[in-house]
Amino acid sequence: MKNTFGNSISLTLFGESHGAMIGAVLDGLAPGIAINEEFIRSQLDKRRPVGKIGTARHEADVFQIVSGVFEGKTTGTPLTILIPNTAQHSKDYTATRSLARPGHADYTAYAKYHGYEDYRGGGHFSGRVTAALVAAGAILISALREKGIMIGTHIQSCAGIADAAFDDVFADIEKLNSLDFAVLDGGRGEKMKAAIEAAAHEGDSVGGVLETAVYGMPAGVGEPWFDTVEGVLSHALFSVPAVKGVQFGDAFEMVNGKGSAYNDSYYISDEEIKTKTNHNGGVNGGITNGMPIVFRCAVKPTPSIFKAQDTVDFMSKENSVLELKGRHDPAVIHRARIVVDSVTALAVADLLAMRYGTDWLKA
Amino acid sequence: MKNTFGNSISLTLFGESHGAMIGAVLDGLAPGIAINEEFIRSQLDKRRPVGKIGTARHEADVFQIVSGVFEGKTTGTPLTILIPNTAQHSKDYTATRSLARPGHADYTAYAKYHGYEDYRGGGHFSGRVTAALVAAGAILISALREKGIMIGTHIQSCAGIADAAFDDVFADIEKLNSLDFAVLDGGRGEKMKAAIEAAAHEGDSVGGVLETAVYGMPAGVGEPWFDTVEGVLSHALFSVPAVKGVQFGDAFEMVNGKGSAYNDSYYISDEEIKTKTNHNGGVNGGITNGMPIVFRCAVKPTPSIFKAQDTVDFMSKENSVLELKGRHDPAVIHRARIVVDSVTALAVADLLAMRYGTDWLKA
Amino acid sequence: MKNTFGNSISLTLFGESHGAMIGAVLDGLAPGIAINEEFIRSQLDKRRPVGKIGTARHEADVFQIVSGVFEGKTTGTPLTILIPNTAQHSKDYTATRSLARPGHADYTAYAKYHGYEDYRGGGHFSGRVTAALVAAGAILISALREKGIMIGTHIQSCAGIADAAFDDVFADIEKLNSLDFAVLDGGRGEKMKAAIEAAAHEGDSVGGVLETAVYGMPAGVGEPWFDTVEGVLSHALFSVPAVKGVQFGDAFEMVNGKGSAYNDSYYISDEEIKTKTNHNGGVNGGITNGMPIVFRCAVKPTPSIFKAQDTVDFMSKENSVLELKGRHDPAVIHRARIVVDSVTALAVADLLAMRYGTDWLKA
Amino acid sequence: MKNTFGNSISLTLFGESHGAMIGAVLDGLAPGIAINEEFIRSQLDKRRPVGKIGTARHEADVFQIVSGVFEGKTTGTPLTILIPNTAQHSKDYTATRSLARPGHADYTAYAKYHGYEDYRGGGHFSGRVTAALVAAGAILISALREKGIMIGTHIQSCAGIADAAFDDVFADIEKLNSLDFAVLDGGRGEKMKAAIEAAAHEGDSVGGVLETAVYGMPAGVGEPWFDTVEGVLSHALFSVPAVKGVQFGDAFEMVNGKGSAYNDSYYISDEEIKTKTNHNGGVNGGITNGMPIVFRCAVKPTPSIFKAQDTVDFMSKENSVLELKGRHDPAVIHRARIVVDSVTALAVADLLAMRYGTDWLKA
Repeated sequence: MKNTFGNSISLTLFGESHGAMIGAVLDGLAPGIAINEEFIRSQLDKRRPVGKIGTARHEADVFQIVSGVFEGKTTGTPLTILIPNTAQHSKDYTATRSLARPGHADYTAYAKYHGYEDYRGGGHFSGRVTAALVAAGAILISALREKGIMIGTHIQSCAGIADAAFDDVFADIEKLNSLDFAVLDGGRGEKMKAAIEAAAHEGDSVGGVLETAVYGMPAGVGEPWFDTVEGVLSHALFSVPAVKGVQFGDAFEMVNGKGSAYNDSYYISDEEIKTKTNHNGGVNGGITNGMPIVFRCAVKPTPSIFKAQDTVDFMSKENSVLELKGRHDPAVIHRARIVVDSVTALAVADLLAMRYGTDWLKA
Repeated sequence: MKNTFGNSISLTLFGESHGAMIGAVLDGLAPGIAINEEFIRSQLDKRRPVGKIGTARHEADVFQIVSGVFEGKTTGTPLTILIPNTAQHSKDYTATRSLARPGHADYTAYAKYHGYEDYRGGGHFSGRVTAALVAAGAILISALREKGIMIGTHIQSCAGIADAAFDDVFADIEKLNSLDFAVLDGGRGEKMKAAIEAAAHEGDSVGGVLETAVYGMPAGVGEPWFDTVEGVLSHALFSVPAVKGVQFGDAFEMVNGKGSAYNDSYYISDEEIKTKTNHNGGVNGGITNGMPIVFRCAVKPTPSIFKAQDTVDFMSKENSVLELKGRHDPAVIHRARIVVDSVTALAVADLLAMRYGTDWLKA
Repeated sequence: MKNTFGNSISLTLFGESHGAMIGAVLDGLAPGIAINEEFIRSQLDKRRPVGKIGTARHEADVFQIVSGVFEGKTTGTPLTILIPNTAQHSKDYTATRSLARPGHADYTAYAKYHGYEDYRGGGHFSGRVTAALVAAGAILISALREKGIMIGTHIQSCAGIADAAFDDVFADIEKLNSLDFAVLDGGRGEKMKAAIEAAAHEGDSVGGVLETAVYGMPAGVGEPWFDTVEGVLSHALFSVPAVKGVQFGDAFEMVNGKGSAYNDSYYISDEEIKTKTNHNGGVNGGITNGMPIVFRCAVKPTPSIFKAQDTVDFMSKENSVLELKGRHDPAVIHRARIVVDSVTALAVADLLAMRYGTDWLKA
Repeated sequence: MKNTFGNSISLTLFGESHGAMIGAVLDGLAPGIAINEEFIRSQLDKRRPVGKIGTARHEADVFQIVSGVFEGKTTGTPLTILIPNTAQHSKDYTATRSLARPGHADYTAYAKYHGYEDYRGGGHFSGRVTAALVAAGAILISALREKGIMIGTHIQSCAGIADAAFDDVFADIEKLNSLDFAVLDGGRGEKMKAAIEAAAHEGDSVGGVLETAVYGMPAGVGEPWFDTVEGVLSHALFSVPAVKGVQFGDAFEMVNGKGSAYNDSYYISDEEIKTKTNHNGGVNGGITNGMPIVFRCAVKPTPSIFKAQDTVDFMSKENSVLELKGRHDPAVIHRARIVVDSVTALAVADLLAMRYGTDWLKA
């Protein structure tokens, strides 16, 4: 299905960085979900550059919902969100059209689209497309919250600086969702920002790890093979720009330990089944166990840097050197966080709708 | 699609550990692919327990192809493989039927299937089902090899002991595929085996990291959003039992570094476009760049251990203690490796068939 | 998805007429559905040749359920049914291997599969594959019945002889499901049988129209565009061998009339919304209206006849003449009827599971 | 996938009759397809009311392509077409909001969407949505034509008046595509128009049959079970408003005849395999045989009539009477014809892309 995700609730993304607009179609929504335009706007704001560590592109991100909503509520028919592009500078891109920016999709786009791709500003590969994803995700995040399912992400580490760990997941999610720079420990967040700024001064960039918790998921969602919770979520998460790794629970930490240390013991708490630890991230055998779903995404250093880089001209097939100019983020992790939340809401809402039917999200 | 994976080439898995048989249906194959039963058998053997570090269950893994093959070649219609279950001991499981083994799917299966699940030996969640996956994958691995695409996996680390790194990917894959215990450095492999045995003596278990390379993929395969190469592969890989994390290239290493250190510079080599490093694992913007696809799977310590564990009776909702008996692997990583290869072949073959059509795999 | 149908509940068919066995995998079933093997057997019997108007092939149709059932009930995991082939005579087919039987799939199979197809007895195109479909469908028919949804089909016409029309749909379905030759008016059924026998004496064949009613469907199921009830049902129905047309309600009759004659007026009956007529076959705008879903399938005369026919050798590309020998049905309509019921159950169950969730069919 | 159709090339429709705009996203297109805006416009014109037999709504149908096209050619990324709604009169609809128009989707929409549906002018069920489908289809029709595949539809009958039959399919398609009122015999077309006008004078409506031919399809496309050519096409065709039946070849005529009369004999013509007749409509066993694909759609009389009709208030559950006012077509068949062509192009393009890969449509 290419640029579409989901079986019961599905999202289709379209648009190019320098085209007329970007947008998304969200289908399979339950009817009657209230649209909170203020919340959508606040999510879009969280996706946009913040202060010194952001880029110079100031785009209003004005969105318009043109279908699927009537009198402030979803109708149940495809909901379409449009976000016009207004601040693009197309003239910047022609000179370097056939120079492959290392770490970017220029060459792979050329290999796939035979030169017909809109190469300006990354085209359809641009992080700008995530604005549409975030707007659509905001609708799902609101709806899930009404059903007691909350999603929150923090910058678990950035430039080698670690945040505090999740403690009280419910309270932590609430806190994170009120922040522009999502860390549990504000002091460490300041250090991260300083490291981002320092990288920017060097014309370089940094990456980090995002950690997400989904609170309130019922046990028994997911499939044993292929449509596992991990498989469905990771399928979507790798669409978040710069994400190159996804782990559930303590995956890459558990690999060096013993089974006795990492099995999550069950116990009864107020007649509910819980686990004492959550090394498995809320999923066993591909299916939710009722504990928070917890996963981490590895966000690579943003590939746009201001140092001279060896590369090739993929049309003439000659070696070349690239020096980027213009505006570029020294880090995207603080912005990617809201994209991760949005993608997570999509995958989780689809899993729930497959399990409980299309009306499940109805208020 | 639940227990089915793939759009153009698809695999459906069925069967329970203690049912009559397990099996797989592989649809969308090109016609004319030669079936090498000897290779299928050798792949199944690689999946089975090895010597001291394996379990006591000696199952013949006799497979039968009952559809989709005529005169030794695929017909292009659904190919079905059956593997009878012969060595199961059903009487072992009734006593502990409602005790949730920590780290296993007993409780999540109960939450999903309301008690109707076949709980014996893990039922449909059993690693035994991977035998069918491996048999089906063997057909794809052979066919991909005919087209110059080779897949190999090594135990990148086990119990904290690291293997050597990939060097000459082509030669390394050839070597790995000849080994029962897939390490690039045999000496370190011996240390891993010793660590597995040591854990077994303690009644405990270990995990590790598998690293896979796919050699020979053309550039330009995959989609920018959602059906990215990473998304499609990870969707399938999380079905490999005990896999809890997937990273492409150096994902969780890159997070602490700078863009300047991890961008893969392009250069021209014999008129072909290559990258000097492969930190991105052969994928940019969701699409192959022609370099080997390289990824790692985090394999958690196998959850079956012989120590007393706190747990619950999920039917009576009471706290309890579980002491496992019987046969259990102290490690599955050396077996999981061939399952990873098989799942990889499925995802890669599907991506290629979507891109180049259903006849592409034809000899 | 090729030989698989369904999003939430899906069926995959496999097998060739002269292979080891045929079978089906049914995934997405709710757990806890009782398996009535006697009913499956009776449905399989209805699919088999009856007396003088059937073929000579007497196949036991012994089925085995090898996964997805535990202690007599569905587990919720993929359910696999196998039916061994025992009565095939492979030697019959080699001589005419490359002669295209008119009206059959020999040439199209060759065009698609490049000669690798199993050509014996129609291979994967054989009506024999419907035995697996009928066995799987029987499970769904039983389960739907438990939820008050009943499916029945009559031979609305055969060889130009019309049956009586549906009157009391509920009672008519009950009656039809007790019959081997499904007509509402037994006298006309005898005339149909006589016409079939007469055609057989001439070495010729006849066709007809099947009319199906689905009773008890709730209103509000289906989608406005593409996944309409008509679209989903017809997609599946064209897999019934010899079906070349599908109409809902009075489609091909309405085309010559006026809107005023064919609009179905609504009225209130016992606080329920009903229509006085059902020219639209229970579907408006792609969505069920609560009235019985009624549709007709055009079944062409079975193409296997005993008269000399002009054809080609598709390998040598030369004109030729074909004279069929062996056993062939002079009509398949009385057998196709149970296949239509089975396919209908699959499509309806999937629509319901998408709407109400995967547990909906649970007893 | 709800309001999306297609596996490799997919179309998603959105919008409501009285919302801001309607539109479509077309994904999976090959890159490099030239966009002929003039042709899109001419197709949209063919969909709009014609002279006396059309409705009073004069809508400009100005479309805008906002993604997926660069420098006049497809990029290969999702192509989005927007068509603003400008001529709607929302005030017309509130008074009769809960009166179910017989033959329309008002009540079924209410049953599905629980009253949250945009009821104005049919909302998402409105024929207006087909404008987006036609615009998207125009791109595919052009692209297919470049590959030698041509699609044409005529009004095979209307109000009981039959058109001439297809004769020289290639020439007939060319002719039909130049006409606003698509009949092969202009004289009979005039009689049809007269009958439509006569019905309009009575406040009534008429229906008819559309017959479509697809010329130039290669043999060997389609699947034996489920994704048959007939199944895939019919799945899409039932989304054309008012279509209630689909038959391939002479389906509902063949049912009364003998196999000897309706088997299509093969012969060799210029080293190509052809059939002397085409009763099977170019498809055997679900797969194309290289002859034109020919099928008919039953278009019911348009349900909007100006006579008083019995109905119910579906909110108060009381019997009522409805008298429609405003603008309504006495026939839609002459407009539906171009929608059928568009839907056909979508299904055919998807079948070809699945078979031959995503680049197949590239110029």
